[in-house]
Amino acid sequence: MAKAGEAADKHEDCGARPGKGTLIIIGGHEDKAHGREILKEVARRVRGGRLVIATVASHKPEGYFESYQEGFDGLDVGELLELYVEERAEASRQEKLELFDGAAGVFFSGGDQLRITSQIGDTPLEARIREVYEAGGVVAGTSAGASVMCETMLVSGHSRESYRIGDLQMAPGLGLVRGVIIDQHFAERGRIGRLLGAVAQNPRVLGIGIDEDTAIVLEGGQFQVIGNGAVYVADGAGITHSNIAEARRDEPLSLYGVRLHVLSRGDAFDLARRQPVSAETLEAGEGQRSDGRAV
Amino acid sequence: MAKAGEAADKHEDCGARPGKGTLIIIGGHEDKAHGREILKEVARRVRGGRLVIATVASHKPEGYFESYQEGFDGLDVGELLELYVEERAEASRQEKLELFDGAAGVFFSGGDQLRITSQIGDTPLEARIREVYEAGGVVAGTSAGASVMCETMLVSGHSRESYRIGDLQMAPGLGLVRGVIIDQHFAERGRIGRLLGAVAQNPRVLGIGIDEDTAIVLEGGQFQVIGNGAVYVADGAGITHSNIAEARRDEPLSLYGVRLHVLSRGDAFDLARRQPVSAETLEAGEGQRSDGRAV
Repeated sequence: MAKAGEAADKHEDCGARPGKGTLIIIGGHEDKAHGREILKEVARRVRGGRLVIATVASHKPEGYFESYQEGFDGLDVGELLELYVEERAEASRQEKLELFDGAAGVFFSGGDQLRITSQIGDTPLEARIREVYEAGGVVAGTSAGASVMCETMLVSGHSRESYRIGDLQMAPGLGLVRGVIIDQHFAERGRIGRLLGAVAQNPRVLGIGIDEDTAIVLEGGQFQVIGNGAVYVADGAGITHSNIAEARRDEPLSLYGVRLHVLSRGDAFDLARRQPVSAETLEAGEGQRSDGRAV
Repeated sequence: MAKAGEAADKHEDCGARPGKGTLIIIGGHEDKAHGREILKEVARRVRGGRLVIATVASHKPEGYFESYQEGFDGLDVGELLELYVEERAEASRQEKLELFDGAAGVFFSGGDQLRITSQIGDTPLEARIREVYEAGGVVAGTSAGASVMCETMLVSGHSRESYRIGDLQMAPGLGLVRGVIIDQHFAERGRIGRLLGAVAQNPRVLGIGIDEDTAIVLEGGQFQVIGNGAVYVADGAGITHSNIAEARRDEPLSLYGVRLHVLSRGDAFDLARRQPVSAETLEAGEGQRSDGRAV
């Protein structure tokens, strides 16, 4: 592994805020019926506590909560409650806030990430979620619920196309993880183009593309991959050329020198050092965190 | 630009064989009705000469030749002839070989790359095509006709999925370009996963993914991008970890440290040095070839 050095200094603000809980960021379509690897990981970390299923991202939340009731059935989740917010005003109501009393975690289902931020951004409800996280709880999110974790989140952009100048909408996210931009349904929807487009805009952010039924479990400055697919990390620190500021709108991106990593189950990644840590290295006992837990 | 050095020595066998003609390698679905940028480039290089449209890749070639007759209509192509081979035995017949008498180029249409190699590989017909190319002619190919240019060609593998161990078929291609492996319909079919899978097998080969209606024009050791989309170059020389030889079949690939370039119209790439050359650099008069032609 790389020693802490220039890169570590440069990106030390990367990752989750220190001393917090766990983020489980899922690329969408997590398995709810067979191995349930990702839901089991959520349950394992909730440890029998209350889990709030936030279906806020959906314009029509019917069925979402029920599908997670089935998905978590038989796993070690104490109490499953639904949070839905039809109108932003509800995000200050006492009965919504009380859902989080003693909650061990929250799980954002999919839909539209702008619905999450516009309905609960800067409300007492968001503050409650942040408190759960600060207290060491779990914040999980899938699909739109994954994108929304970032400080600046991807909102829309074409899939199955190379990135064209101007073709990407971003917006302020919940900011639970810093220095990264997350895309989901990654291989399935052919999104390498738009992730590179996002990284090109400011290579300070590390691009993370997560496949369906795949997740990263992020604690402190490191994450580990679980699930069935791959996670792509696009590091733009070494980019030597980009046409993003010069080319006309709709012209394809030109971008040289991205460092790309493909991670799969068991692989970990150090966000500050921008270095992957292989499953084998972790198993060999290296890459442990200072608190002794495996990353 | 990088100086010729270690990398140049290492990859000097990369690219088209020296002293030959031009390869125009197209990612499929090249525009035949509007700007026709790619077909115009083919015509410009055929310079009024005979162009053979090889529809060999197709099991049902009906309509292919006619679509290219329309596509090249009004462009400076002297004579357009169709080459089709139903059975391999035909690839030795005089009337097929005579199609190439005085030909300035050949254009392989799409279909199945294995049809091209199994029908004409190691036949007098292939030898004639090679002669045209050796004499400075044009060999163009789109889709399957693009893949077949390589020494080892991609035959099949899943699109819109991350690469899984064992999920890729490769076969010996025509070998007109060395040291690279080409994939087509690249962004449109979400093929970054399988291209990285191919590169992981032996990072000696440079992975080149070409979008639809996009092409590389390859002469000597350099190519330039034309057309409407992007070209991705995946350089595995710096890979630090790969699970390709250890992981079980169907497990997702783990691969660290690929260098990725996204090139668009006007960008060039030096295959021996494994370095992109930007359109701006070329326009500034740098990056010229020793014969004075722009790369």
